[in-house]
Amino acid sequence: MWSNSIGKAFVVTCFGESHGPVVGVTIDGCPAGLPLSTDDIQRYLDLRIPQEKEVVSARREPDIVEIFSGIFQNHTTGAPITLHIRNKDVKSADYEPMKDIVRPGHADYPAKVKFGGFSDYRGGGRLSGRMTAAFVAAGAIAQKLLSTFGVDVLAYTSSIASVAMHRVPELDIVRKMTLENSMRCPDPVIAEKMRQVVLRAKSEGDSVGGVVECITQNLPVGVGEPIFDSIDSELAKILFGIPAVKGVEFGAGFQSTRLRGSENNDQYVINDGKIMTLTNNSGGVLGGMSTGMPLLVRVAFKPPSSIAKEQKTVNVSEMEETELGVKGRHDPCVVPKAVPVVQGMVAISLADLMIRGGMIPRILKS
Amino acid sequence: MWSNSIGKAFVVTCFGESHGPVVGVTIDGCPAGLPLSTDDIQRYLDLRIPQEKEVVSARREPDIVEIFSGIFQNHTTGAPITLHIRNKDVKSADYEPMKDIVRPGHADYPAKVKFGGFSDYRGGGRLSGRMTAAFVAAGAIAQKLLSTFGVDVLAYTSSIASVAMHRVPELDIVRKMTLENSMRCPDPVIAEKMRQVVLRAKSEGDSVGGVVECITQNLPVGVGEPIFDSIDSELAKILFGIPAVKGVEFGAGFQSTRLRGSENNDQYVINDGKIMTLTNNSGGVLGGMSTGMPLLVRVAFKPPSSIAKEQKTVNVSEMEETELGVKGRHDPCVVPKAVPVVQGMVAISLADLMIRGGMIPRILKS
Amino acid sequence: MWSNSIGKAFVVTCFGESHGPVVGVTIDGCPAGLPLSTDDIQRYLDLRIPQEKEVVSARREPDIVEIFSGIFQNHTTGAPITLHIRNKDVKSADYEPMKDIVRPGHADYPAKVKFGGFSDYRGGGRLSGRMTAAFVAAGAIAQKLLSTFGVDVLAYTSSIASVAMHRVPELDIVRKMTLENSMRCPDPVIAEKMRQVVLRAKSEGDSVGGVVECITQNLPVGVGEPIFDSIDSELAKILFGIPAVKGVEFGAGFQSTRLRGSENNDQYVINDGKIMTLTNNSGGVLGGMSTGMPLLVRVAFKPPSSIAKEQKTVNVSEMEETELGVKGRHDPCVVPKAVPVVQGMVAISLADLMIRGGMIPRILKS
Amino acid sequence: MWSNSIGKAFVVTCFGESHGPVVGVTIDGCPAGLPLSTDDIQRYLDLRIPQEKEVVSARREPDIVEIFSGIFQNHTTGAPITLHIRNKDVKSADYEPMKDIVRPGHADYPAKVKFGGFSDYRGGGRLSGRMTAAFVAAGAIAQKLLSTFGVDVLAYTSSIASVAMHRVPELDIVRKMTLENSMRCPDPVIAEKMRQVVLRAKSEGDSVGGVVECITQNLPVGVGEPIFDSIDSELAKILFGIPAVKGVEFGAGFQSTRLRGSENNDQYVINDGKIMTLTNNSGGVLGGMSTGMPLLVRVAFKPPSSIAKEQKTVNVSEMEETELGVKGRHDPCVVPKAVPVVQGMVAISLADLMIRGGMIPRILKS
Repeated sequence: MWSNSIGKAFVVTCFGESHGPVVGVTIDGCPAGLPLSTDDIQRYLDLRIPQEKEVVSARREPDIVEIFSGIFQNHTTGAPITLHIRNKDVKSADYEPMKDIVRPGHADYPAKVKFGGFSDYRGGGRLSGRMTAAFVAAGAIAQKLLSTFGVDVLAYTSSIASVAMHRVPELDIVRKMTLENSMRCPDPVIAEKMRQVVLRAKSEGDSVGGVVECITQNLPVGVGEPIFDSIDSELAKILFGIPAVKGVEFGAGFQSTRLRGSENNDQYVINDGKIMTLTNNSGGVLGGMSTGMPLLVRVAFKPPSSIAKEQKTVNVSEMEETELGVKGRHDPCVVPKAVPVVQGMVAISLADLMIRGGMIPRILKS
Repeated sequence: MWSNSIGKAFVVTCFGESHGPVVGVTIDGCPAGLPLSTDDIQRYLDLRIPQEKEVVSARREPDIVEIFSGIFQNHTTGAPITLHIRNKDVKSADYEPMKDIVRPGHADYPAKVKFGGFSDYRGGGRLSGRMTAAFVAAGAIAQKLLSTFGVDVLAYTSSIASVAMHRVPELDIVRKMTLENSMRCPDPVIAEKMRQVVLRAKSEGDSVGGVVECITQNLPVGVGEPIFDSIDSELAKILFGIPAVKGVEFGAGFQSTRLRGSENNDQYVINDGKIMTLTNNSGGVLGGMSTGMPLLVRVAFKPPSSIAKEQKTVNVSEMEETELGVKGRHDPCVVPKAVPVVQGMVAISLADLMIRGGMIPRILKS
Repeated sequence: MWSNSIGKAFVVTCFGESHGPVVGVTIDGCPAGLPLSTDDIQRYLDLRIPQEKEVVSARREPDIVEIFSGIFQNHTTGAPITLHIRNKDVKSADYEPMKDIVRPGHADYPAKVKFGGFSDYRGGGRLSGRMTAAFVAAGAIAQKLLSTFGVDVLAYTSSIASVAMHRVPELDIVRKMTLENSMRCPDPVIAEKMRQVVLRAKSEGDSVGGVVECITQNLPVGVGEPIFDSIDSELAKILFGIPAVKGVEFGAGFQSTRLRGSENNDQYVINDGKIMTLTNNSGGVLGGMSTGMPLLVRVAFKPPSSIAKEQKTVNVSEMEETELGVKGRHDPCVVPKAVPVVQGMVAISLADLMIRGGMIPRILKS
Repeated sequence: MWSNSIGKAFVVTCFGESHGPVVGVTIDGCPAGLPLSTDDIQRYLDLRIPQEKEVVSARREPDIVEIFSGIFQNHTTGAPITLHIRNKDVKSADYEPMKDIVRPGHADYPAKVKFGGFSDYRGGGRLSGRMTAAFVAAGAIAQKLLSTFGVDVLAYTSSIASVAMHRVPELDIVRKMTLENSMRCPDPVIAEKMRQVVLRAKSEGDSVGGVVECITQNLPVGVGEPIFDSIDSELAKILFGIPAVKGVEFGAGFQSTRLRGSENNDQYVINDGKIMTLTNNSGGVLGGMSTGMPLLVRVAFKPPSSIAKEQKTVNVSEMEETELGVKGRHDPCVVPKAVPVVQGMVAISLADLMIRGGMIPRILKS
């Protein structure tokens, strides 16, 4: 009914509810010997939510991570690592009136049909975006592990509504600039336009979506287990696990359907004794395996469903049409918050595939 | 290294190579009591490849299916069903010269790095599009099973290069018209334009891509197991297992990133005592579960990588740049062939999720 | 390297170390709608360790369970349930001298070779019998679930050293008497003999083993998924996960190898309109499925490896022979403590198989 | 309902029915680069059934293996290997009268309840001992793989009825003598006594059971993934998948429950610079991991259930008591046939665990 675990070698199991005592995650299969402290995780949690109050929901969680297992003498032991993040700023009462009125765009209606009367509906329960705090925490460990092998995962906001970056930015720019603004966009000029779009939507009781782009550098060739656990299959699967995602594409993606083969094929050359391609329309993946070129994935986020504007809907217990404007605390745009989530999710999947492919050993050198 | 199985309840394991004796598949977990004969599978295999020679590769396989287990008195028994499709029209010699020269856009380069010297490279070996014959066979069983529960999966060509249908067609039209032309497009006028685009590309030694759209009707509400085995996660995963796929989106997909929440949210109404939505921007999926509206997924296929035009590449054993125009038998466009593959893959995933969700019992009524 | 999860539908993932902050467990897949409180779990933890100090280790943990997720309004929601039991009475210093001297009969030597330098060796780390507290907690939930369906799992001490019960006792006696003595043996006379054997071994710096028997009543016919997840396969697998187990048999078990077919076959009769067998040499399992007769499994526990007596061993870092008498707190016999562990493990496995077999629904009636 | 796959890295999926066209198996995850031909498999199939007609069932299958995938230039490629063994000597009519009368000791009754009306009941269908031909074929590949790493798996008959070998024999003797007699017992004198016991049981319309012992030599230290996929858990699980198995024990097994810790503990010494133990009561497994000493597992087989003697039973469709003497072709003792099956099953499980533990790489050196 629920499916709470992902991965085969680096297995992430999440648990908890939006308004329960904790959101948590167990990472099973992290190699032994990785230096790891709460700080390594905390700094990602601290960055998850932009500080600018105007552009995000009013729910404010300190998001302090606690580690309960799997660490000994400041290193991972290879045993499962369980993490908790306590929920503090909970206003369950906000959700009482909506118990029977299904919110358009949210999962309320199918969840009600599927899970029946026992579900924790407070704040979306287990379907809440709050779960992504656990993904970010697990992703922090995956990123620490990947970085040990020189692999660097970087996400950023590529577009919000119609305001878009028109080319893939330099990675150094991404690294330096993404966290400099509340939009998580490496181009400050575009970021400011995005911000205006978000504020306008908010002021009109509405919301906007956008695209998060994620680039992974220095991935070895051959990551991905074809046929079914190909790198694109695995990334797509985990990315659609993030609330509000409606599309995933690699490299030229949907655009490649309008190119000729001769344009779209990435031609091989030798550069400094290394095989490379002149273009990267494949997004660094061929036949479900990494090519050694930067891995480029683009993730479409729809505009948040909770809006103040009144919309038609239905009271399902009385089977009556009604209208609803969603009160309470919600985001006018989830894209900036989604940036570290995408980054973490990609890292989790790559860590899993690299271990499976033998590129990361189960015991690191001490 | 390879990953050959997919599904948790309706488990599909494929095997075989492009130039080996067979391409085969085992379906484990098909409920007992489904009437099934080779004809039910053969008719999908017969439709897989458009009959018009000009638009497809010259490799011609009769694709006769044989069943080896799991059927008793013309019904499934619940035991694993193993199917073979023999390979007959094999020209392995074509591939000898390309052993060391990696074809741009193909998986040759990462496969060589990943699998080393023991792989069967003939015709792409296990990475060949030929594997999709097994997917179509397994998909035939899934469709037979789904149809018993009133669920109908229909795919068609939505665009080739820049020639596109601009709206989702009526399903009756799709059902009647899709197989009437070699482009598998339900609109005959657009189909003819697509055909011209394909023929032009072919005559220029080039290739074109396109989008396959797949609609599933009558899916019950609540199919999909959030968080990680959500309906969109599972479909995306299996669809990226098809060679040449570069993007997957649901409903308004990437377009939804440019809509306001008030435009994108599908508002609920009651129609004939049933809860429905006025629009279907969600593509029939919310929170990873089906909503009861038609499930709409769009799949981007890149232009085939094998083209006659000369392209830069590398001889990897001599680490030398060279040029390659791919000889032999190849498709100028795989989109029409991909239509039944997408349809089968979607059906496999939905069968799996419906069994998992208790919507299809393990023993059908006798 | 480690394998910390078991089950396919009722999935139990354990974590924690003997001397870490907690021992914990996540139960994923418990059906929604089961009334559940900490009390339901606490009472099993309270019974885990006999109160008579003389017969058990001096380590004394209060073993208070805490629930972090998956419960709403005193019922399970179907979401993962995470439990912690804090470790309090930890004496890590006891284990320093044994860091390099491998204890005979313990896992120290293979663990050292397998996991290398990063493992938490304190008190056996993750290989400690302490992990069984988590099994008992998860088993408590499984038993609550099974009891809802009338299924009753009962374990007891059948033999210690050579003191044995010679026939399977009446279940009412088992239910009433097992917890009345510190040996967990339903026959008080035999229990007292067992106690003497344990005390004698202890006084001589030695230890003794024994057999735990477990009977399950009212199991429906057909539990177990042949071929590989048969009821005997699954129970054997989980039972060998308990430290110190060296053998598992069903019904007449090894004794059946000395019977003729005509003696061993359980003949069918009709009793009160129900199909039964005259004997139960099969132990309630045929072809890997339950027969409806009581399920009887017997589990052999070796004598504890930690003994005060000096024994030959090796200092592995200096590759030098030495002698070792194990100091610190240890049990002269683990059999009484193993009784609730066996009972819990059997319940976990049966809950998993009954859900998989459709005998327990995913949402209980409210 | 059925569970047809086992293993996580070396995954064996079996299919087929006793009276269907084939019994087959897919091995997924066999490392690339293993030299393999049909002969490597055929020789195990040829040895499966003792040639002496008097001691085995009259059903005679040539058991010719065919390979359909995964082999290229006489080596495994790492892709799935599918094998078929055709069924030829099928007498389905024998089973018609027994359709409704459940045979004591067989799985007929639970199978009928569990699988209902669609199962293939001919010759036991999928629950037939015939499935073990597929296990032997898969086991042959596992043994070829293990032998490449110096690991040698040897099974033999240890007892039949009350005729038993009283100590573990020398492995050279096992290797040389086991196949010299139809009992598969390395001691020819005991073998002859066993043979007399079997013939006597047969002449009296009855059957006998026995114990198969299996020793694995040269296993590296640390095979097995604690906690749940420990070496003993995994072996026990797969061994209970063989029809007629009622008990599994390691080393001193149930006997260890009657030993003191000081007797049962295997003391460590250094021998030729290698750490060894003076005894092997552990059977080569501690904490779920191999110790480097010979791995010793003992498997109890009950007497075959099909006997000519009349026994009470029930006609389940008419719910009427009746008597049944099983006609047709059956074995008076399955133990000799079980020897290569146990050997194959142990090898499959060890291959899986050694790959998982990194002791066998995914690509062998070419």
